[in-house]
Amino acid sequence: MTKRIAIIGAGPSGLAQLRAFESARKAGVEIPEIVCFEKQSNWGGLWNYTWRTGLDEYGEPVHGSMYRFLWSNGPKECLEFADYSFEEHFGRPIPSYPPRAVLHDYIAGRVEKSGVRKYVQFSTPVRWVSYSPETEKFTVTVKDQKKDETRSEEFDYVVVASGHFSTPNVPYFEGFEKFPGRVLHAHDFRDANEFVGKNILLVGSSYSAEDIGTQCFKYGAKSITFSYRTKPMGFNWPEGFTEKPLLTKVEGKTAYFKDGTSKEVDAIILCTGYQHHFPFLPDDLRLKTNNRLYPLNLYKGIFWQQNPKLIYIGMQDQYYTFNMFDAQAWYARDVILGRLSLPSAAEQDADIKSWRAREEVLANPFEAIDYQTEYMRDLLAATDYPFLDVDKVAALFKEWEHDKEHSILGYRDHSYVSVLTGNQAPVHHTRWMEALDDSLEAFLAIKEAAE
Amino acid sequence: MTKRIAIIGAGPSGLAQLRAFESARKAGVEIPEIVCFEKQSNWGGLWNYTWRTGLDEYGEPVHGSMYRFLWSNGPKECLEFADYSFEEHFGRPIPSYPPRAVLHDYIAGRVEKSGVRKYVQFSTPVRWVSYSPETEKFTVTVKDQKKDETRSEEFDYVVVASGHFSTPNVPYFEGFEKFPGRVLHAHDFRDANEFVGKNILLVGSSYSAEDIGTQCFKYGAKSITFSYRTKPMGFNWPEGFTEKPLLTKVEGKTAYFKDGTSKEVDAIILCTGYQHHFPFLPDDLRLKTNNRLYPLNLYKGIFWQQNPKLIYIGMQDQYYTFNMFDAQAWYARDVILGRLSLPSAAEQDADIKSWRAREEVLANPFEAIDYQTEYMRDLLAATDYPFLDVDKVAALFKEWEHDKEHSILGYRDHSYVSVLTGNQAPVHHTRWMEALDDSLEAFLAIKEAAE
Repeated sequence: MTKRIAIIGAGPSGLAQLRAFESARKAGVEIPEIVCFEKQSNWGGLWNYTWRTGLDEYGEPVHGSMYRFLWSNGPKECLEFADYSFEEHFGRPIPSYPPRAVLHDYIAGRVEKSGVRKYVQFSTPVRWVSYSPETEKFTVTVKDQKKDETRSEEFDYVVVASGHFSTPNVPYFEGFEKFPGRVLHAHDFRDANEFVGKNILLVGSSYSAEDIGTQCFKYGAKSITFSYRTKPMGFNWPEGFTEKPLLTKVEGKTAYFKDGTSKEVDAIILCTGYQHHFPFLPDDLRLKTNNRLYPLNLYKGIFWQQNPKLIYIGMQDQYYTFNMFDAQAWYARDVILGRLSLPSAAEQDADIKSWRAREEVLANPFEAIDYQTEYMRDLLAATDYPFLDVDKVAALFKEWEHDKEHSILGYRDHSYVSVLTGNQAPVHHTRWMEALDDSLEAFLAIKEAAE
Repeated sequence: MTKRIAIIGAGPSGLAQLRAFESARKAGVEIPEIVCFEKQSNWGGLWNYTWRTGLDEYGEPVHGSMYRFLWSNGPKECLEFADYSFEEHFGRPIPSYPPRAVLHDYIAGRVEKSGVRKYVQFSTPVRWVSYSPETEKFTVTVKDQKKDETRSEEFDYVVVASGHFSTPNVPYFEGFEKFPGRVLHAHDFRDANEFVGKNILLVGSSYSAEDIGTQCFKYGAKSITFSYRTKPMGFNWPEGFTEKPLLTKVEGKTAYFKDGTSKEVDAIILCTGYQHHFPFLPDDLRLKTNNRLYPLNLYKGIFWQQNPKLIYIGMQDQYYTFNMFDAQAWYARDVILGRLSLPSAAEQDADIKSWRAREEVLANPFEAIDYQTEYMRDLLAATDYPFLDVDKVAALFKEWEHDKEHSILGYRDHSYVSVLTGNQAPVHHTRWMEALDDSLEAFLAIKEAAE
């Protein structure tokens, strides 16, 4: 009997898994029956923008952490699919830091072209997954929101591709319950225009704080104050930005910091990270980890140690994104198809421990980039995923780190060479700080002056 | 073997069920084993205030729709527990419209006194409930958030007391995805101070719109615009308030209405109601209803027709609140204890249809009050719940309706006679429009001038 595979989520990770199977099928391989359950009404995962926050129209947690005016914060050349270049999709080279709509178009373009939409059941959140050692099958219970019906189906494999940047980690600080302005997590941030003319406090010192802070500044916030727990981001901030140590309390509109200083603020945005959250999984199937490059209990960062028929895609902290999900999905596919076999439990365990030990001594982002590059190389060597020159990608990541250090408001004005096509990306027609329109049409337009 | 009962939720409905069993136990009756699962870290349900919106610290949907500065929008004399008067709790008569903290204190006081905290497992959301016709038991799967562990237990009865004002109904209107201010549902409203000096649009014409609109005005909003689907609230609004027909679209900050008029607004608050939402229940156990006085499929408004060992408390639209949950909980208790028996399925069905038919022809709020009073009388007659003179309560509800019609900003300055003690409540020391401090201490303080 044909094996059945459930894929949970149709974002970049779930779509990578669909694409991996479809590419085998088109090469004449018999593939299992695939059903992809997607909570949202369209695919794209985080790359869907919604104005909704909190709970969606069906009362489910809103998946999206996406906001208006988001532009890629890394070069598109670092995330390019090896089987589908930006040039193939757009018909010509485009600048290196596209806004959200452009990246969504690119992600969707590949999967539309490969015809995998038929595998996806939209508006269908997964309620519960269980595994029976007797039948050796998973039972997946889902809710069909449009029919308002719940049902269960059996599967031989489950691929968890539900992401880990959707469930906010929201700490409490003294005084929050009486702060007379908005307190929100980055997950609920939607539009910088809400904060024009305001003094904004962002708690956190990672990508969300950096990007939301600079964006609010770009759209007219009065001042941006960052508060860090461990160390400041340390960029060469222009006037209007301040970095403070950790928030200690809020009294009225006044925020107090660990160094004894204070600042009056109108809104507080918690850029305090996300949780790996799987409310549909029982304990014996549930990954428990913080956000890091090598979570434990996943062989090759993919296969659940206690039951390798449970597969996780994209659960690592990420330099590599879309093409790493591909590398994982191709590997998972080949294990399911029997092209690759998993070593003994002891060997798996030793391999995980070895990777983890190396992860724990990484000293800086440059070493972390090399580490994840090594991980990519390991996965890619095993499958027929098209050639991707990860050494070149790693070099781009390092160049990007330097560009950010040089100018946090200007790094997106750089352009890079595609690892796939060898072509240099054009410089965008407008500097990022002046590019207020983030539409696909505006981005792709060629300004007369630039012609 | 002792029967086991699971109660889902420790808000006013779940606490009523605990209190009902405890009062039987104290009277010497042998009661079943009871476990109450509460998602929040404290009891009180909606009456807990949290600054959190969207998802909580564990990534679960925030239950609370409570906001700062909420004062009861109905006389406390209409919701008084028949076994625990306000005078007993506070030691003296208090004014008729208490703020949230005072009502929470009252709810908690009764259950603290009766010692039922030991039955409650806090920070423990229910993940899934199933029923086995073979074993005739429910399996309830819960997540212990503090231990980060999921487990399942068997029960003979399940009482669903999880409320129905926690999952927002959030419609889309054209232009929301680009509105340059905050769009939120009443569920996420927390603090009127966020809206000082702003033009606010509230979509909806029921209690949330009325209360949030008046409160924002009280705390300094620049203007309040209500938008109704069917008909305006029609109160005698003072300057600063406008009622408009339904919103058609938003362009930039401009809201357009069905009558062709428009208004520039800074924030949009959707007061568009709530969903009955039970993501932990399979279809054959799940109540599907809109918010109304007599949902179908519940005998006596309580017992799930297909399986009366599944009990719903408080799922009706409500004039009566706390004491109605009591009336239901006492009735449910007596059925579980075998003191009351349920009629045949056919008789149950006829009874439900008869109540529903009468509900469908109710012409106005006064008839609706009489209808729910009749429902209360029916339940109360069957159990040993202390005497409650529902005719007097009904009269108070009608007086309250008139008081609101007379002055929507002034009705909370009235005082009423307790149905239980016969004592007239004192007039509050400060008119509601001037009472900016909603703390228990401020409310209970006796002003020198008033002495």
